[in-house]
Amino acid sequence: MKILRLLRFQELTYNQKEKRLAASIKLIVGSKPLNLSLYKLALKHVSVAKETKSGIKISNERLEYLGDAVLGTVVAEYLFMKFPYRDEGFLTETRSRIVNREALNAVGQKMGLPKLVEAEMEGKIPFSFKSLYGDMLEALIGAIYLDRGYGFCKKFIYKRLIIPYFDLDDIIKTTANFKSKIIEWSQKDNKEIDFVLKSVSGSQRFKEFVIELNIDGETVGEGKGPTKKKAEQEAARMACEKLQLVF
Amino acid sequence: MKILRLLRFQELTYNQKEKRLAASIKLIVGSKPLNLSLYKLALKHVSVAKETKSGIKISNERLEYLGDAVLGTVVAEYLFMKFPYRDEGFLTETRSRIVNREALNAVGQKMGLPKLVEAEMEGKIPFSFKSLYGDMLEALIGAIYLDRGYGFCKKFIYKRLIIPYFDLDDIIKTTANFKSKIIEWSQKDNKEIDFVLKSVSGSQRFKEFVIELNIDGETVGEGKGPTKKKAEQEAARMACEKLQLVF
Repeated sequence: MKILRLLRFQELTYNQKEKRLAASIKLIVGSKPLNLSLYKLALKHVSVAKETKSGIKISNERLEYLGDAVLGTVVAEYLFMKFPYRDEGFLTETRSRIVNREALNAVGQKMGLPKLVEAEMEGKIPFSFKSLYGDMLEALIGAIYLDRGYGFCKKFIYKRLIIPYFDLDDIIKTTANFKSKIIEWSQKDNKEIDFVLKSVSGSQRFKEFVIELNIDGETVGEGKGPTKKKAEQEAARMACEKLQLVF
Repeated sequence: MKILRLLRFQELTYNQKEKRLAASIKLIVGSKPLNLSLYKLALKHVSVAKETKSGIKISNERLEYLGDAVLGTVVAEYLFMKFPYRDEGFLTETRSRIVNREALNAVGQKMGLPKLVEAEMEGKIPFSFKSLYGDMLEALIGAIYLDRGYGFCKKFIYKRLIIPYFDLDDIIKTTANFKSKIIEWSQKDNKEIDFVLKSVSGSQRFKEFVIELNIDGETVGEGKGPTKKKAEQEAARMACEKLQLVF
């Protein structure tokens, strides 16, 4: 079936609007769509979706659910390969800095999704909806995955999403070092901070450290972990949240 | 490179223990490993990992991070295809009933991971660690993904994980109907429940409903959503959590 689609007989049946859409998608994705209806669906925000007789709203939300998962996996692998010596905590944290609403929304806009939507919806854009382009980007990834398979989709995400739009050096500089953030803050604000080891449990082989973080004598965070370092990070993270320290 | 590995020259260098491990993995995965070291790593729980000179613990945690993502995507697609008329809320909820610690832990045990670990660790199993086999199953999926690629890994998850171990009919019967759960509970406990529409905002095209759930006059949940039904579900979900109603 994919072979037949690769031959692109479908294109012969495109109307003017569909031809323009296919051309725009080629610019964004890097290759002509095989199944254009998937991309049309990806651009269909729930706010413009019509309800069918049976009460189902056909919108891009299902594709968004799928694309979100695919994007998560591809970014997970990208970081896994790029940072062979970093632990899973670092990888998870770094991934969440790439795969989050605000970042994806900004990227969706830079990629040119607004123009695509304008053309497709003929002006009726639900501007009020905040993460519109982030959601749509995920739906687009879902459509690419179904249209072209995992390998193609992975290349798309690497080459046209992560590499051009994310400065990893910049992202990892600010990633996850909650302890140093707290120390920096305490020095500036002249606070006394103290990481206190409360307990160590477990066997010799598998230990669990519990560490409390006190600021000027008051406990503001507690962390558990298999190493002191991780427990401290956890306690510092909790404190950063409580104190609303932003990175 | 994969071609060379497919020719399996590596096997000639296996010692007795490695031969046994490769055979056991073939039983579980359905095919001999190409790169055995990935599977060895997948079985290395952090509690038995040794620290290297540079202070890095080589354990299965990184593979677990990767496998968790791959599993999430494969299950997402499986449900996407199986339920073409269900919305993303249903799909997300159903997925979380498959991809969760307890379920995966049980499946990992049924699949025969304990025997594999026993052989590999020569008895030194960290029994104290609760989700050991669920974590290990995710790490195994990460190893299969790296060893054999996405397509193979997807087939493994479909055929040897979802289909044999999860009764989807049973799972969806109890999925996500928080509203009916609350109603059922109220009838049994003779409580009066009331879903109150508090506000509708947004444009004609994109509405947001806010619904409050009162039980015997007291507000126990509030939900927002693009339809009344979703807002009610959300409110009922919050109430179920507060009341600690278990499914």
